[in-house]
Amino acid sequence: MRNRSANGLQTPDPVRCHGEPAIFRTIANVTANFGLALAGAMLVPALIDLADENPDWKVFVGSSALIGMVCAMIAVATREEKPRFTQRLGFLVTTSVWIFGATVGAIPLYVSSVNLTYAGAFFESMSGLTTTGSTVISGLDALPRGILMWRSLLQWLGGIGIIGMALLILPSLRAGGMALFHMESSDKSDKVLPRINQLTGGLVAAYTALTLTCAIVYTALGMTFFDAVNHAMTTLSTGGYSTHDASMGYFDDNRILAASTLFMILGSLPFVVYIRAFLPRRFHLWRDPQIKLFLLICLVLSLAIAISRRVINGTDFGEALISSTFNLVSIITTTGYASEDFTLWSNAAIGLFFLATFLGGCAGSTAGGIKANRLYILYHLVETNFRRLVRPHAVIRLRYGNSEIAPEGIQTVTIFFFLFFGTLLMGTVLLSMFGLDLITAFSGTLTALANVGPGFGQIIGPAGNFASLPDGALWILSITMLLGRLELVTVLILLFPRTWTE
Amino acid sequence: MRNRSANGLQTPDPVRCHGEPAIFRTIANVTANFGLALAGAMLVPALIDLADENPDWKVFVGSSALIGMVCAMIAVATREEKPRFTQRLGFLVTTSVWIFGATVGAIPLYVSSVNLTYAGAFFESMSGLTTTGSTVISGLDALPRGILMWRSLLQWLGGIGIIGMALLILPSLRAGGMALFHMESSDKSDKVLPRINQLTGGLVAAYTALTLTCAIVYTALGMTFFDAVNHAMTTLSTGGYSTHDASMGYFDDNRILAASTLFMILGSLPFVVYIRAFLPRRFHLWRDPQIKLFLLICLVLSLAIAISRRVINGTDFGEALISSTFNLVSIITTTGYASEDFTLWSNAAIGLFFLATFLGGCAGSTAGGIKANRLYILYHLVETNFRRLVRPHAVIRLRYGNSEIAPEGIQTVTIFFFLFFGTLLMGTVLLSMFGLDLITAFSGTLTALANVGPGFGQIIGPAGNFASLPDGALWILSITMLLGRLELVTVLILLFPRTWTE
Repeated sequence: MRNRSANGLQTPDPVRCHGEPAIFRTIANVTANFGLALAGAMLVPALIDLADENPDWKVFVGSSALIGMVCAMIAVATREEKPRFTQRLGFLVTTSVWIFGATVGAIPLYVSSVNLTYAGAFFESMSGLTTTGSTVISGLDALPRGILMWRSLLQWLGGIGIIGMALLILPSLRAGGMALFHMESSDKSDKVLPRINQLTGGLVAAYTALTLTCAIVYTALGMTFFDAVNHAMTTLSTGGYSTHDASMGYFDDNRILAASTLFMILGSLPFVVYIRAFLPRRFHLWRDPQIKLFLLICLVLSLAIAISRRVINGTDFGEALISSTFNLVSIITTTGYASEDFTLWSNAAIGLFFLATFLGGCAGSTAGGIKANRLYILYHLVETNFRRLVRPHAVIRLRYGNSEIAPEGIQTVTIFFFLFFGTLLMGTVLLSMFGLDLITAFSGTLTALANVGPGFGQIIGPAGNFASLPDGALWILSITMLLGRLELVTVLILLFPRTWTE
Repeated sequence: MRNRSANGLQTPDPVRCHGEPAIFRTIANVTANFGLALAGAMLVPALIDLADENPDWKVFVGSSALIGMVCAMIAVATREEKPRFTQRLGFLVTTSVWIFGATVGAIPLYVSSVNLTYAGAFFESMSGLTTTGSTVISGLDALPRGILMWRSLLQWLGGIGIIGMALLILPSLRAGGMALFHMESSDKSDKVLPRINQLTGGLVAAYTALTLTCAIVYTALGMTFFDAVNHAMTTLSTGGYSTHDASMGYFDDNRILAASTLFMILGSLPFVVYIRAFLPRRFHLWRDPQIKLFLLICLVLSLAIAISRRVINGTDFGEALISSTFNLVSIITTTGYASEDFTLWSNAAIGLFFLATFLGGCAGSTAGGIKANRLYILYHLVETNFRRLVRPHAVIRLRYGNSEIAPEGIQTVTIFFFLFFGTLLMGTVLLSMFGLDLITAFSGTLTALANVGPGFGQIIGPAGNFASLPDGALWILSITMLLGRLELVTVLILLFPRTWTE
């Protein structure tokens, strides 16, 4: 607008004319590089299918070659010096990488022997990359191993992707839970840059080490090597894809449930805790109050469900505690495994699982949902507000751990909360337009938005899947998963006209 | 804490020792005066039952005499000069008046020929006073007319009560939607006092005039005088109690639906618009943007439902438009009448009605829900936040109509939003503990919190009622109605320990 002179003629804007193409080149470049990584990852399932003599290996090799070539050409053509980082660039790159990833990741699923529409394949791929874990595929046990591995890989890559994004990119965009800390950091941004490589390396190392440990534990507890690797990848990414329709219930082993519970929780803690010794001081959040709150919520809800089963169903308390904790932690960490159809336990249990679906893990982890740091801040926001109402002249500051939270940080949290519930209601209405009943529409939107996996009701509950949903509903749910994964604001701001006109 | 000296001994606090009893005397006095008003109102159903030769007239006269005597004694005993108005006093008086009113209003329902537990009678009375309209009574058509009139009277008195409270008390407590305007008012509080009587008189006059007009219109359209008066009282109060199990569907007349739609909307507009000519300038809110937004939402959702019925059910559009608009306006204004079981229309219609249950009418009216002024502010809060993200250095102010909103005003709105959804989830979990299924527990809490009336699902949907719910669930829902009616903070702050210790 500032370039429009009084008589309505536009004067050229040297910054924009020069800046816009550079921005789009950068986006194309980053996205293409991400596509190259996915094309490389496709060779893993290709090798497995080749070893199994399953003809799907050609699908993976073909997809990999095609995507790799196109992305390589784009990457080379758009290579140039980095443009100045702007907010708009950050939102655009983040969103387009994720959409492009899901689009490309869906190709082998669409072309392979699994019979999916492209909407179904895109849903499955987006559900993988966003570590949601909802599936449109039934008959997992009979599926070629390459496809199973590809689903797990999508979740594993999505998991490390979101940790990196939550720590490195989203804070600059003031989106996501970690924004609060970034803003009050005294580090100058030019000092941070050399440390970013160190941080990224540390994150990847910690994530990989945890996944390997989990796979070894699973193998030791009796899983096949293939099952152990797949489930380790989808446990640490809090994704929840399984290689069996019965999910973790297939193994029928309480020791596996206990181990899985532990690693799901490890995947839901802020990953900086694993590498803090190597980090600059600003990332030292071990006294992060969200961790205590998250663990407390897990404990209280697990106990409540176990007690309800003892009282209502007469289940042995020890037995009830293990499976209650596993299934509850699976939902609250937004993983989405199930050891049985927990919605059959009682309505009281359903109510508690429903609550857990909203809450989520910690910021800076692979978990989704509202997240413990936001819950902590919202609780204290209410507390300080109540204190101010009773004592209008008192000076009350809102603290997070040892730091005071700036008003912008509070607004970031409240805006997220509003966008979360607004999106939840809008998604419910849109899904109901495709004929979904209220419980399926509402819990489907919720489980997608919080990146959990199973919903509630007959169709998409823990014993069901999303296969019977119409394509339109799958598209809406795919977008909802993306919105939830990218902390809503990152995507929604792009739909806001003033982002482009101002 | 400030009275505790270093060695742990407490020194006497002259302000508190003198102040606390005065506060409780005031609360007892105000509450008792309110009880006297209710005791007086009980004589109306007593007269009707006497005319009908129904023995319930003794119940009403007896209740009236008992309550009247007790309250008169309390009122006289606690009469003294007014203590200084404090925040805490405001919250306490507001909450205790409403709880006492529901307790007392339940007595004739409990003692009368209707067979209710006290939990059921309290629920019915609270549902009346909070203008919610959920009922535990089936067989309304066969009920004594005195009971029917008492239910309608409770809603009518609750309606004028909440308008008065929203305009006169809640702003001082920084609760409710009107707080925003109060805070930026340049009037000094000692100047406002003489105008308050004028304002109160104007509100009562406008409310009574609208109710009479509505009753005349209903009579002209063919209702009996008794039905017309009862429905007029429950229309303007957006309460929704009917004298027939089939609600407004009993009359089977589109003209009545259209008239009712109009008066429900009139009851959901800020009542200051009806008396603005007599008001000081600070109440001139005719350009209040919430009105436009509220009417726009009504229009869009009504059209969407009518179109969905044309497309999905093949209903004639004109016919569909009238009943769709009536039922949608009934939900969004939080009245809760139904002309038929609209949840049978389609899942698309259910989704839209579900959304409408959250939204509510305007602040300063008899309607509940989130309310249009908050929706307006939340939308603009997101908008300004998005603009700030893209242009970090721009100076962007959040406006409501012609006024800038103070940060405290924004926080009031966001806190309400958080408390609303927090209460919704907690209520759902608590109701599920009493064995209610998810859809009944969730939509029951929602409809109580938003003071709407009907929920969703088989049990409490528009064709059902709350009769089959266990007493524990009815108590929880009664508290939820109270929370919703008093804008949450007014009640919740009393449960917060620091309100009492600081």
